[in-house]
Amino acid sequence: MRLDTLITNARIADLYRLRVFAGWVGIAGGRFIYVEEGARPADLAAETIVDAGGRYIVPGLIDSHMHIESSLITPRRFAEAALPRGTTTVLTDPHEVANVGGVAAVRWMVDASRGLPLDVFTAIPSCVPATGPEIEWTSAVFGADEIIDLADDPTVIALGEVMDYQGLLGQNDRLPPMVAAALRRGLRVEGHIPTLAGMALSSYLAHGVTSDHTLTTPAKLLEQVSKGVAVMLQMKSITPENIATVNALADRSLILLVTDDIEPSLLADRHLDWIVRLAVEAGMPPLEALASASLRPARYLGLRDRGGIAPGLRADFLLLDDLTAFPPEAVFVEGQPVAARGAFTASLPAELPALPAYPAVPGPLGEDAFRFAGQKGATLAANIVTLENDRNSLTGLAQRAIRLDEAGAPIFEPGDGLNLVGVFARDGSSAALGFLQGANLNAGAFASSLAHDSHNLFVIGRDPRSMAAAARAVWEQGGGLAVTEGETLTAALALPLFGLLSDAPVAEVAAAMQAVEDALWAAGMTHQRPFLVLSVLALTVSPYYKFSDHGVVDTERRALLPAWEGA
Amino acid sequence: MRLDTLITNARIADLYRLRVFAGWVGIAGGRFIYVEEGARPADLAAETIVDAGGRYIVPGLIDSHMHIESSLITPRRFAEAALPRGTTTVLTDPHEVANVGGVAAVRWMVDASRGLPLDVFTAIPSCVPATGPEIEWTSAVFGADEIIDLADDPTVIALGEVMDYQGLLGQNDRLPPMVAAALRRGLRVEGHIPTLAGMALSSYLAHGVTSDHTLTTPAKLLEQVSKGVAVMLQMKSITPENIATVNALADRSLILLVTDDIEPSLLADRHLDWIVRLAVEAGMPPLEALASASLRPARYLGLRDRGGIAPGLRADFLLLDDLTAFPPEAVFVEGQPVAARGAFTASLPAELPALPAYPAVPGPLGEDAFRFAGQKGATLAANIVTLENDRNSLTGLAQRAIRLDEAGAPIFEPGDGLNLVGVFARDGSSAALGFLQGANLNAGAFASSLAHDSHNLFVIGRDPRSMAAAARAVWEQGGGLAVTEGETLTAALALPLFGLLSDAPVAEVAAAMQAVEDALWAAGMTHQRPFLVLSVLALTVSPYYKFSDHGVVDTERRALLPAWEGA
Repeated sequence: MRLDTLITNARIADLYRLRVFAGWVGIAGGRFIYVEEGARPADLAAETIVDAGGRYIVPGLIDSHMHIESSLITPRRFAEAALPRGTTTVLTDPHEVANVGGVAAVRWMVDASRGLPLDVFTAIPSCVPATGPEIEWTSAVFGADEIIDLADDPTVIALGEVMDYQGLLGQNDRLPPMVAAALRRGLRVEGHIPTLAGMALSSYLAHGVTSDHTLTTPAKLLEQVSKGVAVMLQMKSITPENIATVNALADRSLILLVTDDIEPSLLADRHLDWIVRLAVEAGMPPLEALASASLRPARYLGLRDRGGIAPGLRADFLLLDDLTAFPPEAVFVEGQPVAARGAFTASLPAELPALPAYPAVPGPLGEDAFRFAGQKGATLAANIVTLENDRNSLTGLAQRAIRLDEAGAPIFEPGDGLNLVGVFARDGSSAALGFLQGANLNAGAFASSLAHDSHNLFVIGRDPRSMAAAARAVWEQGGGLAVTEGETLTAALALPLFGLLSDAPVAEVAAAMQAVEDALWAAGMTHQRPFLVLSVLALTVSPYYKFSDHGVVDTERRALLPAWEGA
Repeated sequence: MRLDTLITNARIADLYRLRVFAGWVGIAGGRFIYVEEGARPADLAAETIVDAGGRYIVPGLIDSHMHIESSLITPRRFAEAALPRGTTTVLTDPHEVANVGGVAAVRWMVDASRGLPLDVFTAIPSCVPATGPEIEWTSAVFGADEIIDLADDPTVIALGEVMDYQGLLGQNDRLPPMVAAALRRGLRVEGHIPTLAGMALSSYLAHGVTSDHTLTTPAKLLEQVSKGVAVMLQMKSITPENIATVNALADRSLILLVTDDIEPSLLADRHLDWIVRLAVEAGMPPLEALASASLRPARYLGLRDRGGIAPGLRADFLLLDDLTAFPPEAVFVEGQPVAARGAFTASLPAELPALPAYPAVPGPLGEDAFRFAGQKGATLAANIVTLENDRNSLTGLAQRAIRLDEAGAPIFEPGDGLNLVGVFARDGSSAALGFLQGANLNAGAFASSLAHDSHNLFVIGRDPRSMAAAARAVWEQGGGLAVTEGETLTAALALPLFGLLSDAPVAEVAAAMQAVEDALWAAGMTHQRPFLVLSVLALTVSPYYKFSDHGVVDTERRALLPAWEGA
């Protein structure tokens, strides 16, 4: 057989036997043909002969749980950033665009992922919407029909993380038929299991869920493995205790390394390779860590054509100076070089698919949108959401009197730490104002069309003028983030696709995001992760009090509170 | 959730972590719901509560490479025999019926396997026929179209063992497109790799082959695992050396235990459990052996719904007094008991599917069919096939003068060890006589419609009268085996389905087979396995000289020889 590429003088990572051997590989038609020990036959010809110089050949990394949207960029921009780090296959769950644009948006992500040198598989988001119309305006509703519809695409191989435990057990009449439809279509069903154990865990798994990627502990990990769950270790779970537990397992088949969410600033210089390196630093043998980021996820996902360096498999591989030396010296996909020394060297599709119809960012909003028109001059006995600290997003509730001026705008006092918050349904049908304490955005305003999970327009500030200006800036960009001081735009990140994604290179997106966060800190915010915390203040399924376009939400009771007593 | 069955006071084999723990399981809808450590909650209700009395709960055994036809019985009779031994899932390759009845016969096997308590998956035979019309008459020819046709059935999950190495590498223009079609349909491609190593092995694997079940050695096993091959250990491969090699692997995911061929007399009291016990006797830890006969084959085959004792999986399991104490105390399939203490207790479908058209056993044949009509009174310079020993089926070639009587029948001398052999195409279109030395069937005759791989009618004897009587007996039975002495039938086994299978209980078939072998020994045969050796004397792909309806076959050169010089 005529070979396209011959790579000689290599050290080959044999993840089947967890060893390294000196040898060579021959590639034709994008597949490994020969993977042999020793020196290559002198008379063997190939189009291209590469002397690996003793470097390691390692399978391309496979990320079995992640969200491209967390990096705020399109699939092609994601491929451009992730491939140079050695990630060659991902399973992405486009949960965010699904909540905005429904089935058509998921299809758009699938279409925008075709023809990339990165091989992208899709998990259909299972919790669209996270709540329901009694809590907030939402754009799309996924049931069994949507799953059946989307499952026809051969790159759709899973149902995304089933977050709604109570829903799965029957309190949501959409979820059980959706999971059943997914299983009938041969899809994996991905889990999200922050707290369940014992019989409650089993009840959840019995519906066909086979993975968990939430923060784990040794005891949780061991119980899940015993119950056949693929335990996906993301950054937070890579602890010495967990890794020691993994190392002691007689069979590590079910241990996978995943990224879950990688924000733009991180993606600029790391992806799944980072998780591999963290695992090794925490005590996992390098070959084990690599197996858990290639061969094991390939097997878990049922991708029989990849995951190892073996005859017949896709020639997706990395050349490394050392087993954990990232970025790779070179990255190959189907036998073709796509990146070298951290730089992307392949080509990307020139065009994005045509965008489907989706509810755009509402606007432009005037200053009156940030005033209480019916309560001019009144004093409100307000229900105030309180941020409990500067490290996470836990919130509480407090009552406090808020005075309004004659135009209906709140009168804040210096140092009171208060903010006005507005959430505006994307279709313009509803809006609500409320109060937050603890973010300490002391001047100006921030607006965002990226506000989990429904991605209605979220605006926070102290005065109607700044808030209207921020909302207008986001509207003019077609989506994204904006920070204003009065009518002056101090920082912005345009996310014109669904109000969630940019098609700019990740470094540009990361720089703009940094500028936004710097502006938020400059305006007084004290939180360690200012954008992150603001982006989940409308996430009505996370503890304990959040904002929606219907008012203040008690997320544990799934109930609305009035923004003030008597409202 | 209301449980159907609760099994308490058990020791559960956790094959994910390769440990045993004390606990209980709860079953509903044929699936495990709860698999928990410790004692069950006292208030948990179920239709049936079973106290396991400290017995082990082990997953039902999964045989990933086997041929139901090797037991000479129908799928329902096979289920009746194999389930009490603990085998609950098989992947069968109906290679024999395919050669006789083509696609329709494969479909018949698939249909005859539906609704059984044994879960039967099918591999489409890939080498139909083994040779071609220049060598012998064959009934069916499988190419890519037949694969595509059969692959639509959801129980068809693999392409059966690709035995034709040269064919795969392009010398047979049917095989490469057939394998490509199988891969496109998502089928596994099973291998048959008796001798390949190094680059030749890789060339073969590069077509997508992922398993081997032939006799192995430590070096062969290690190379295959490094190349991603599932190494299936059958009886012959269970040696202390191989098991020590397996035990030293850092990852045993690719080590599977299989039966391949189990003849009726063995099936009466053993199946895959036997291979498990042999592996343990050879040094494999019991939990490892069980994993290689349940969880690992389930993963290899992509059967995500079974293989372990875990929530959500099919409740296919065994109750054992000890991890290797077979037959099981009880066997459950989808939560229902199907066997106890070696006895089948479930029900089977009352009827077999209607048989498709297939070429019947030719006949009745007269005595003249066993005479050389054109050479009456001549002396033939015959090419004689020689059986080289009494242990295996290797043959050689010798030349020898054979005198014919005035009717054209050979004149044998006492103690010459010679036999006349006739092979008759099933459609009656061709026939050939030849000579064998070494079987030592000194009197009477034997006839069989089971003659690998084309299953034409095979007759061996010393005199035309006995041979015609044996051929007639097989014809009258609609297929099977017969031994005659003159016109007296001394033993017979009827195989009326395709001339290959019986629908009698396996014990009856085993008894009839024993009578046939006893009769063959009584008639002078000295071979250790008289039926086995006779059944492969027409197998024109095994070394070195065989018989076909076209004459004597040089199987290495794939060429016909004249039965005598000048013919």
